[in-house]
Amino acid sequence: MGYQEIIEDLYKSVKREENIGSLASFIPELGKVDPQKFGIHLITTDGRAFGVGDYEEKFSIQSIIKVPSLALAYKIMGESLWARLGYEPSGTPFNSLVQLEHDRGIPKNPLINSGALVICDILISKLENPQEDFLHFMRKASGNPTIAYSPQIAESEKSVGYRNIALCNFIKSFGNIENDPDEVLDFYFNQCSIELTCRELSEAFLFFANFGVVPSSGDRIMTGSQVKRINAIMQTCGFYDESGEFAFKVGLPGKSGVGGGIVAVHPGQYSIAVWSPVLNKKGNSYRGVKFLEQFTTRTELSIF
Amino acid sequence: MGYQEIIEDLYKSVKREENIGSLASFIPELGKVDPQKFGIHLITTDGRAFGVGDYEEKFSIQSIIKVPSLALAYKIMGESLWARLGYEPSGTPFNSLVQLEHDRGIPKNPLINSGALVICDILISKLENPQEDFLHFMRKASGNPTIAYSPQIAESEKSVGYRNIALCNFIKSFGNIENDPDEVLDFYFNQCSIELTCRELSEAFLFFANFGVVPSSGDRIMTGSQVKRINAIMQTCGFYDESGEFAFKVGLPGKSGVGGGIVAVHPGQYSIAVWSPVLNKKGNSYRGVKFLEQFTTRTELSIF
Amino acid sequence: MGYQEIIEDLYKSVKREENIGSLASFIPELGKVDPQKFGIHLITTDGRAFGVGDYEEKFSIQSIIKVPSLALAYKIMGESLWARLGYEPSGTPFNSLVQLEHDRGIPKNPLINSGALVICDILISKLENPQEDFLHFMRKASGNPTIAYSPQIAESEKSVGYRNIALCNFIKSFGNIENDPDEVLDFYFNQCSIELTCRELSEAFLFFANFGVVPSSGDRIMTGSQVKRINAIMQTCGFYDESGEFAFKVGLPGKSGVGGGIVAVHPGQYSIAVWSPVLNKKGNSYRGVKFLEQFTTRTELSIF
Amino acid sequence: MGYQEIIEDLYKSVKREENIGSLASFIPELGKVDPQKFGIHLITTDGRAFGVGDYEEKFSIQSIIKVPSLALAYKIMGESLWARLGYEPSGTPFNSLVQLEHDRGIPKNPLINSGALVICDILISKLENPQEDFLHFMRKASGNPTIAYSPQIAESEKSVGYRNIALCNFIKSFGNIENDPDEVLDFYFNQCSIELTCRELSEAFLFFANFGVVPSSGDRIMTGSQVKRINAIMQTCGFYDESGEFAFKVGLPGKSGVGGGIVAVHPGQYSIAVWSPVLNKKGNSYRGVKFLEQFTTRTELSIF
Repeated sequence: MGYQEIIEDLYKSVKREENIGSLASFIPELGKVDPQKFGIHLITTDGRAFGVGDYEEKFSIQSIIKVPSLALAYKIMGESLWARLGYEPSGTPFNSLVQLEHDRGIPKNPLINSGALVICDILISKLENPQEDFLHFMRKASGNPTIAYSPQIAESEKSVGYRNIALCNFIKSFGNIENDPDEVLDFYFNQCSIELTCRELSEAFLFFANFGVVPSSGDRIMTGSQVKRINAIMQTCGFYDESGEFAFKVGLPGKSGVGGGIVAVHPGQYSIAVWSPVLNKKGNSYRGVKFLEQFTTRTELSIF
Repeated sequence: MGYQEIIEDLYKSVKREENIGSLASFIPELGKVDPQKFGIHLITTDGRAFGVGDYEEKFSIQSIIKVPSLALAYKIMGESLWARLGYEPSGTPFNSLVQLEHDRGIPKNPLINSGALVICDILISKLENPQEDFLHFMRKASGNPTIAYSPQIAESEKSVGYRNIALCNFIKSFGNIENDPDEVLDFYFNQCSIELTCRELSEAFLFFANFGVVPSSGDRIMTGSQVKRINAIMQTCGFYDESGEFAFKVGLPGKSGVGGGIVAVHPGQYSIAVWSPVLNKKGNSYRGVKFLEQFTTRTELSIF
Repeated sequence: MGYQEIIEDLYKSVKREENIGSLASFIPELGKVDPQKFGIHLITTDGRAFGVGDYEEKFSIQSIIKVPSLALAYKIMGESLWARLGYEPSGTPFNSLVQLEHDRGIPKNPLINSGALVICDILISKLENPQEDFLHFMRKASGNPTIAYSPQIAESEKSVGYRNIALCNFIKSFGNIENDPDEVLDFYFNQCSIELTCRELSEAFLFFANFGVVPSSGDRIMTGSQVKRINAIMQTCGFYDESGEFAFKVGLPGKSGVGGGIVAVHPGQYSIAVWSPVLNKKGNSYRGVKFLEQFTTRTELSIF
Repeated sequence: MGYQEIIEDLYKSVKREENIGSLASFIPELGKVDPQKFGIHLITTDGRAFGVGDYEEKFSIQSIIKVPSLALAYKIMGESLWARLGYEPSGTPFNSLVQLEHDRGIPKNPLINSGALVICDILISKLENPQEDFLHFMRKASGNPTIAYSPQIAESEKSVGYRNIALCNFIKSFGNIENDPDEVLDFYFNQCSIELTCRELSEAFLFFANFGVVPSSGDRIMTGSQVKRINAIMQTCGFYDESGEFAFKVGLPGKSGVGGGIVAVHPGQYSIAVWSPVLNKKGNSYRGVKFLEQFTTRTELSIF
């Protein structure tokens, strides 16, 4: 059975079951999304593409952007990046602040909010026009010249972003933010506001499945070794305190966002993006996790 | 270049460099080991075997036994096992007790001490003769009828095991230990006392690289899906708070012990065991991590 | 209005109201007590005594014994005692273990379980016959030659004492327990098992209200300065994480036990003991706190 | 020996000893103060006043203002105040954020920064002109019409106030700040900027020693019961994680500030203010604590 049949089949069966959880209504704009939206798109490193459901509809990718943001900072800084943050799983969210305090402002990894704020700070220090340069990087990596920030969503997040403001100022108090916290937060909220379709998202992550090269253009975005290391970080840290569960049940490196998107890569094989905005208790897409769990079981293709 | 040349080459180059760290001298018996011991053994799923250095010398595998112990409990209990403990990375050791308190005695995963104690408790409840039955399981999985406990090492650990006694009684206070804490601790210390050579250790873990089947005997130890899930747990939780680093630098599921052993598996390919008793600050073999990092770089074979 | 009228009056009004909470049924023997028991006894430094209700009935004083135990250790060790533990309030119980870990086995103060275990360890190291010598001290301080341990209650506590076993072994793992944890725990459980009446308890604490001297015998138990300092510790640490509330509402140094007893002292004036076994959520006697709050309001005598 | 002789005597002997610690140089303006400044002023409830050293020189009272700020909020809100924050000691500073997280944004007490921010928020909600009304309250309580904010110091604190910004936004994220965090922080920094002399400070706190009445004017600021309760909070929470030590060594309710000031009250007797800007490791005036310890030892007047 080919990928198209499998994803259509699983799409139907997952859609038949109850959709359990809630929208990310703490961000006003995300609370307005139709909870029944459900799309999947898979693209292989040799160029075949498969889609089902609402895979051509844009959604807010939110924290998924932390991976490309890390990629750009890692490309610029190399291993010196790790003086500013770690690459260890973070344990429970409960401990996030006590760990920052214990580690004197050094975030555990780049895929939690504190780490992503430090990455934004690094990009501001190193790039001439951080906001534009980052978009340029995203466009090149995905072969998609239309990628842009969504001012409306960025504004919506800012209006309720007290915890991120707290985090950024807390890290600044330890000296691990170089720039003005307001500027760092502004960049961070803009990054989180990017909207992509499942197709665009799977394309934007294909170079992570292809050892650093965009298959369509042949552009090398980063070295194969760097990509492997980012995949390892996605595997161990990509799903907050559910990272172990995602490795356990799905067995692929990936990243989720509170907009209901999940992207995962199978190195050497494919990149897959799923979107369904209803979130489980840990803040990951309920149907997205379910679909991917059944998908790797059915294809018998996990990295383990 | 074949595996034998690569491991000999890396063995020599790692041995030339300084050996930085210290023995696990908090356990008296482990403090007596020659710090310069260094052995490697790799065995492929199709039966080829490669060794270098002290790979035929026995050492205390310590926490590595937590993986087979988990395997037996998972085989017996199936998914109901996860009512008693999680499969999420634990974050910093600093948080171990506060997490147990926060989670009312439910350990984060089976590869930290608290989780392994709960696994021992389960095996005591479910097996007729826990200590003998576990040895039997180990012998069958490894094809090695000589595996045995080392009373001298077990006694040595018991004499300084205050923190494990604390953990076990703390979990008992939440009701997540069913049996007498002393009995659980006795089984736990016995498990940790097992001594294997690098060759034996790589053989004992080969079924994890072979989807649940011991290649030499054709015995199925557990299902392919169960083995994948244990591999995922090794990947995210196998190296305490250095699990992210091991995934990042080595890119294979594995498990370390304070005796200086590390075992790692490449699903579908091989199992590899390394032993060098000098530990880095996180309690993992300094040369073991170094060797494996260079090994997967050289062979360009990580799962990512 | 004199003390006798006031305590009778408040006894009646508090008894009329509902008795909200539960017995300390986690210790089997304490779960068997009649929840409606209620007694009060006050004795002044100039020898006047006033009682109401069940003030001549024995009850298990439990943690209240931590104060005389501290007093004896302080008398023996002087200020060098504070190398082994602190005299700061402990914050929430939630943090007790993380604080011990953070402070490398140094308890925050002598009136929480971890601190009392360290005090027991010190007494074992310093006294020839710790168990007998401690009884002798108690008998002299209270002018009561009948004080004795209750083997039945001690046994009952031991049978469920997993958390104290955990604490003692945890502290031992940091090296801050010198003796065998089992011996320390045995002494600790024996201390907690002592039973006194309200009259006996108020008498035993009278020297804390009289600058170190037992009024009836003229015996100086410790210096005035030492007694002031122990009173300060009672004030800031005597009621677990409700110490602030007790200072706020009652305004006297005191100590509570899960047997439902509370003793408080007004320096230069009196010692008062109250007993009612139903506990509030923080583990302090519901009616005991209520009575004392109204008592200091009525007498307009708090230390503040 | 009278108060004047005692304070002069102790002033000389404390001044002869080394001054150990450092200025609060994390706030630029406070780092410019002459470290050898040392002043003391005591005023009794019956109007006698005694001063020595630099007691007529203004200094930044910093956190000491948290007590009058609490007093005004308590006067306005009564016991309903305690729905917004607690009155328990906070334990180690290490735990401050984890406690806020655990308690869902409810600070442990009004004398730590998080609690003082909530008090500021309450005053903003309840007062017509919060900044002016608070000055008015301070002027009336102290009988001193010249009390004013210091814009230069407020600005200096704002410029490095990242941790307070973090705290305020963190509490806001739990909904326990009603107003705009920037407005709350502005008021907070203004409060902390007030400068007083030792004489003025001791006068401003005299009503806490006089059951709520300003002796000179006869003005009742709050009820006797309310004052007792604030004194109890000062006793258990006034010196951060050194509150136990201050109770232990000094035995009076009091409050310190990082400007090097300490004020303490003996109910029914006197109010005393000490200023010496060199701080010990816990952030309390080194000479201030030393002087007060010897003062209560010499006068044999502690509340215990």
